[in-house]
Amino acid sequence: MNLDDIGEFGFIARIRKRAGSCADLVLGIGDDCAVSRLKPGELLLTSTDLLIEDVHFRRAWSDLKTLGRKSVSVNVSDVAAMGGRPFSLYLGLGIPAGWTLEELDAFADGVVEACAAYGAVLAGGDTCRSPGPLFISVTVEGRVPEGELVSRAGARPGDLLWVSGSLGDSALALRELLAGRRPDVQSAARHHDPCARVALGRALAAQGLATSMIDVSDGLLADLGHLLDSSAVGARVARAALPVSSFFRAALREDPSLMDLALSGGEDYELLFTSPPEQAAAVSALVANGVAVTQIGHILPQDDGLQLVDAQGNPCPLPRSGFDHFG
Amino acid sequence: MNLDDIGEFGFIARIRKRAGSCADLVLGIGDDCAVSRLKPGELLLTSTDLLIEDVHFRRAWSDLKTLGRKSVSVNVSDVAAMGGRPFSLYLGLGIPAGWTLEELDAFADGVVEACAAYGAVLAGGDTCRSPGPLFISVTVEGRVPEGELVSRAGARPGDLLWVSGSLGDSALALRELLAGRRPDVQSAARHHDPCARVALGRALAAQGLATSMIDVSDGLLADLGHLLDSSAVGARVARAALPVSSFFRAALREDPSLMDLALSGGEDYELLFTSPPEQAAAVSALVANGVAVTQIGHILPQDDGLQLVDAQGNPCPLPRSGFDHFG
Repeated sequence: MNLDDIGEFGFIARIRKRAGSCADLVLGIGDDCAVSRLKPGELLLTSTDLLIEDVHFRRAWSDLKTLGRKSVSVNVSDVAAMGGRPFSLYLGLGIPAGWTLEELDAFADGVVEACAAYGAVLAGGDTCRSPGPLFISVTVEGRVPEGELVSRAGARPGDLLWVSGSLGDSALALRELLAGRRPDVQSAARHHDPCARVALGRALAAQGLATSMIDVSDGLLADLGHLLDSSAVGARVARAALPVSSFFRAALREDPSLMDLALSGGEDYELLFTSPPEQAAAVSALVANGVAVTQIGHILPQDDGLQLVDAQGNPCPLPRSGFDHFG
Repeated sequence: MNLDDIGEFGFIARIRKRAGSCADLVLGIGDDCAVSRLKPGELLLTSTDLLIEDVHFRRAWSDLKTLGRKSVSVNVSDVAAMGGRPFSLYLGLGIPAGWTLEELDAFADGVVEACAAYGAVLAGGDTCRSPGPLFISVTVEGRVPEGELVSRAGARPGDLLWVSGSLGDSALALRELLAGRRPDVQSAARHHDPCARVALGRALAAQGLATSMIDVSDGLLADLGHLLDSSAVGARVARAALPVSSFFRAALREDPSLMDLALSGGEDYELLFTSPPEQAAAVSALVANGVAVTQIGHILPQDDGLQLVDAQGNPCPLPRSGFDHFG
């Protein structure tokens, strides 16, 4: 069956049936706006992301359900990076001609499944034809208790610098895909189906452990640069301390230059954060949803800039600083 | 100067400078999420819209500043239709190669200007390259006191049916544009630079006059159909009562079939609402920001369906029922 057979409003009704509901969503899909309720003392967090075919993804590389899941996760990751929990997601879809209902259902299933996994609801959206590639826009709303908000701007000299999980896996898979090779299963999963670190972000925020935080989407050094700019500080990063997975380490043994992927590959969707040194034990004890954290450096005064050092403490050259859509 | 010269983060910094701020926006552009505060007893309203080049607009038909304004207005119109006020807007931009900074500045100026006119702030967004046409996503957040929310679902048999302003002007301009003719200045303004009826929606909501409301984007009869479905009622609409502008009336004298544009042309961005008959005097006395309201029919039980009648009360055939992106 084709989209033309059921029309725009048939398609919306079909998505609406899948979308579910939650207590604080007063009205979901089916009115001019979604209507939500916040609790007293909660702040509203909102972030929007675009995913465009042949820019952010290729149809041939991933099934559509997984693409739907990824569209949600990359957006929810921004809420995690402020210490919040997502509650609503809004989906815009510009759909090329010829898509089947089965394809759209698979994509919608992935969106709804990922929303549910993060405790959020698909609350609204917009659909239309695209005369070009598939266009996806996602907007997430989350909440955080007012005193627990963690922005990019609170890092202070002396704070320790931490990152969650492991770096470079997603970029390693992308490198293989771009070269026409098949990435191994584990790095492919990190690239196609990343996981937003909501539980870790909440734990850091609720326990007051993070002085600043950002998610790693453009690449570790690029996103660290954003955090340093916002906080008006510098940092030293120990290259040998960067957490990498066992399969990334195996690849690294074959080609040491792959370390640049961990430094600036991007799409890790890990949390990069700072914490006062006296909280080091509490932070390293945090393992949220099986995700560990690793100290990778510390914060310096702004004039010291961003320094990368090797195992002996000697300065290393900085690789190119992450992805720029127009640079 | 070109976008490539300043890069993605240069462009974001340039937009950020324009974006302004407001009291309840705790953090705007420049972190992982925007952060906002709602007042106790307020509900959050959220709506997202897509505008895709050669689907929703053509570059040759409108200057970019006006396109920026329209992108905001069509989205804010959804907040107006729930009785709310907008406070934040989020902009996603997929930009084809070759755009100049001057073009992007013009578009951004239009977005920021329209936000300011509605009392809202550009609070976040995402930008990237588009390998296809210009792709715009807009998401608006608004607020409404909990007891004043007006959904599509409250119309009751006996309620009067009202619409604001005038119908068909925008569709008249679009018809001229599609035919390769130059529309007159007034209908062109309605098409390219519509005005969301925020003041009227607020007045209706605050005074408790509307039992249901929707904005007219797909066409009067199509949007009325949505309202009737949500409220589980029918309606009779008097064709002779439909409010049209003086320039639309002049065109109508030449070609009476143009009446279909007022019934189902779409993109009017007027408010269509129902009100109890005992409030008729209060409703007709409402003139918000110079926009009058007109009674065009009344609500019937659901089994009576949607009826269109002529000046003598005789049934008229219903024209095609509005725009469907996939139908």
